[in-house]
Amino acid sequence: MSKVVKKAASRKPRKSSRPSGRGPAKHHVWSKVELETLNPLLQRQMLTGTNVMLARILLKKGCIVPLHSHHNEQLSYVIEGALRFTIHGKDTTVSAGEVLTIPPNVPHLVKALRDSVTLDVFHPPRMDWINKADAYLRK
Amino acid sequence: MSKVVKKAASRKPRKSSRPSGRGPAKHHVWSKVELETLNPLLQRQMLTGTNVMLARILLKKGCIVPLHSHHNEQLSYVIEGALRFTIHGKDTTVSAGEVLTIPPNVPHLVKALRDSVTLDVFHPPRMDWINKADAYLRK
Repeated sequence: MSKVVKKAASRKPRKSSRPSGRGPAKHHVWSKVELETLNPLLQRQMLTGTNVMLARILLKKGCIVPLHSHHNEQLSYVIEGALRFTIHGKDTTVSAGEVLTIPPNVPHLVKALRDSVTLDVFHPPRMDWINKADAYLRK
Repeated sequence: MSKVVKKAASRKPRKSSRPSGRGPAKHHVWSKVELETLNPLLQRQMLTGTNVMLARILLKKGCIVPLHSHHNEQLSYVIEGALRFTIHGKDTTVSAGEVLTIPPNVPHLVKALRDSVTLDVFHPPRMDWINKADAYLRK
């Protein structure tokens, strides 16, 4: 099994990249949100609210997100395809329309069993993603 | 315009209904989550994580959620149909696949323009919903 990656999530965020906090309601259309390509099998879009981040993640079949953990609570809602999460050595397949709730600091590995799209909710927002301190995703 | 409803959200939650907090990751299948019928046009399911709640809300065409506000940050991701949000007198139509981020304490009214399904994220979880202190939805 891969090594637990904790480094990225524990880095101190740059102040300039902090979410703006309070503000007006905002309407978001995914086609106008930046799409980042992290590696040939993994792409990501993200929206940051006040204390919550919503990310739309596109994983090609076979994509593996190595075992990692973060202080951010995570809820993964799979929109298309199927993802296999490995947590404490146990596999759970989450198919389209299903949800996995992952408390803070629980190490998890993810493998895309098919081309998949997931909506991930994080609390608080992933500052390591905002600050691009997420080398573990870029291999 | 309808009166701003603040009463429900400000009620003190019953201790017995607090979310359980930390715990293992959990796999959720919506078909096995309780479906509450709040009124003939509105149904709701909810999942509570550590500090975040995910709700799946089914609104029939014409359903109106009266103007209300809450201290909980809200992100609404419309899965099917279209919802018109009215905020500070301005209408915003959020169609399937689009997102509205609503900071804490921003009054909003919602009308379903078609039969719709939305996934709403709340931080912190809506204790007024967990405690059923949400009369404004049950009219």
